[in-house]
Amino acid sequence: MRSLSGIQPSGILHIGNYFGAIKQFIDLQDEYEGFYFLADFHALTSLPDSESLKHNTMSAILDYLACGLDPEKSTLFLQSDVPEHTELSWILSNVTPIGLLERGHSYKDKVSKGIKPNTGLFTYPVLMAADILIYDSDIVPVGKDQKQHLEMTRDIAIKFNEHYNKEVFKLPEEKILETLAVVPGIDGEKMSKSYKNIINMFLPEKELKKQVMSIVTDSTPLEEPKNPDNNITKLYSLFASKEEIQAMKDNFTNGNYGYGHGKTELYNKILEYFAPYRKKREELENNMDYVEKILKKGAEKARDIASKKVSEVRKTVGLMGRNY
Amino acid sequence: MRSLSGIQPSGILHIGNYFGAIKQFIDLQDEYEGFYFLADFHALTSLPDSESLKHNTMSAILDYLACGLDPEKSTLFLQSDVPEHTELSWILSNVTPIGLLERGHSYKDKVSKGIKPNTGLFTYPVLMAADILIYDSDIVPVGKDQKQHLEMTRDIAIKFNEHYNKEVFKLPEEKILETLAVVPGIDGEKMSKSYKNIINMFLPEKELKKQVMSIVTDSTPLEEPKNPDNNITKLYSLFASKEEIQAMKDNFTNGNYGYGHGKTELYNKILEYFAPYRKKREELENNMDYVEKILKKGAEKARDIASKKVSEVRKTVGLMGRNY
Repeated sequence: MRSLSGIQPSGILHIGNYFGAIKQFIDLQDEYEGFYFLADFHALTSLPDSESLKHNTMSAILDYLACGLDPEKSTLFLQSDVPEHTELSWILSNVTPIGLLERGHSYKDKVSKGIKPNTGLFTYPVLMAADILIYDSDIVPVGKDQKQHLEMTRDIAIKFNEHYNKEVFKLPEEKILETLAVVPGIDGEKMSKSYKNIINMFLPEKELKKQVMSIVTDSTPLEEPKNPDNNITKLYSLFASKEEIQAMKDNFTNGNYGYGHGKTELYNKILEYFAPYRKKREELENNMDYVEKILKKGAEKARDIASKKVSEVRKTVGLMGRNY
Repeated sequence: MRSLSGIQPSGILHIGNYFGAIKQFIDLQDEYEGFYFLADFHALTSLPDSESLKHNTMSAILDYLACGLDPEKSTLFLQSDVPEHTELSWILSNVTPIGLLERGHSYKDKVSKGIKPNTGLFTYPVLMAADILIYDSDIVPVGKDQKQHLEMTRDIAIKFNEHYNKEVFKLPEEKILETLAVVPGIDGEKMSKSYKNIINMFLPEKELKKQVMSIVTDSTPLEEPKNPDNNITKLYSLFASKEEIQAMKDNFTNGNYGYGHGKTELYNKILEYFAPYRKKREELENNMDYVEKILKKGAEKARDIASKKVSEVRKTVGLMGRNY
């Protein structure tokens, strides 16, 4: 069974990303033949500047490898290393009614927020369909918000198969990722880059500590009892054992335990939890030749599969290029 | 100066196509460095069946070569041999406002005719922009109806250059093709495949003669004088000398000259005019290896230029694939 996951190179990773999706993403590699790609073609829809896109792409690769994506088990590659995605996207666009795209939640959301849509943003579900169908993916792990896009992919595949009267595309199944925990940010709201309340586990220690120390608390004096369900314990719960969590909660309830103490314990726990990942990431950063080798190998494997699929599609629709 | 022309593989060629556009198209090869491509990616927007698309593509290549397109002077290739067109199209779609496409005449026409639009039909001007910009084309010969699409190409190029603050794309100039003659069909209306009033100069003689003999005339008896400006003389004027035209007109005016006589003269003239083209086409049909060689050579040259341009574009936008 083949599983396909697209990774948005959307900037510095935080522990909300990690517990919200990445951990589950990576865990799938033990169950499926995993294809993981950096969706840099998709990232263009928000028109990032060139340096940001490059930096975020490479940063996301390091993040995923550091967090445990195993290039021996899975295929990791850049979408832009397999331009066949865009070729298939064009071919599929001809069986995609405009109405289908107009009903897209993500598109409607953006329009309703007053974002002036570009054509890439509008047609992005067609490229996503190409991403998935080009590898005959059996399952696609997605968050609940991506469920509709996968339905669109199936609609497009069905339309193509019906029009050309041939089962060219396999219909992928979705696998809705359970969010294990809603990770609170330093202000107690859901952790999100756009809320500026994030903790980035891969920052240098000093900056990481600064983020943890910025967790919002009330001004209860040190010696007094405090609410044990505060932003610190909520975050601590992601990393600590039951006993440790209870111990911190008791400390807050009993008083004579300041928020600063709790933050320091949390910070140490985060460092401890991510220590092997931080070490791995540092090693990778110092060994970019190795990372490039992984990407080249991944690209070769992906492109081999993708170009065979596109060749089959071209024959089916009657394009003669490289077939005459 | 480089000139780019897209050829729609839209089925059997008729003398209306020839005098309306193809002759001028081909004449340009003496003035410019001509790039001629069979727009088979574009043809998919009407979802032809596979066999028709293949047949029409190959047929159009034979037609153009037979009509004088010289592969030594110009580069002739299949669009689907250069998939970089679709890759650039995706990249450009991100600087293309949807509003620009919604204002497209051709799109609006089709919608107003009740054609349920697919996404390919909607985004086709973006692919056309990619076709043109990928070769740094200086001029693009178009009919008046295509003027707006070229303006869109320039708009898209300007938006890209401005966003990335770099003159990546050359702004192409249009060259409006003068229609030398409106060619009447066998019923006197403008010759058009959709009116079913065409004369196909590459048909076998018997079928060609049948088409000419079907020219619509009135029922004036043989011996009586006839209107010298009839459908026969109008078509005859495309091929005959001034003296010959006058002679035929006199014959009609004087009477004792039947429409059948005129049709036979016209038929002989058409055969004479197109004799070298018909011979050439037959030779090509019997030498498909040679035709394939031309296409391969054309594809290599086009792809070399296109892939360099796309590589420059990828660097500009920050896509790392094949650049890390």
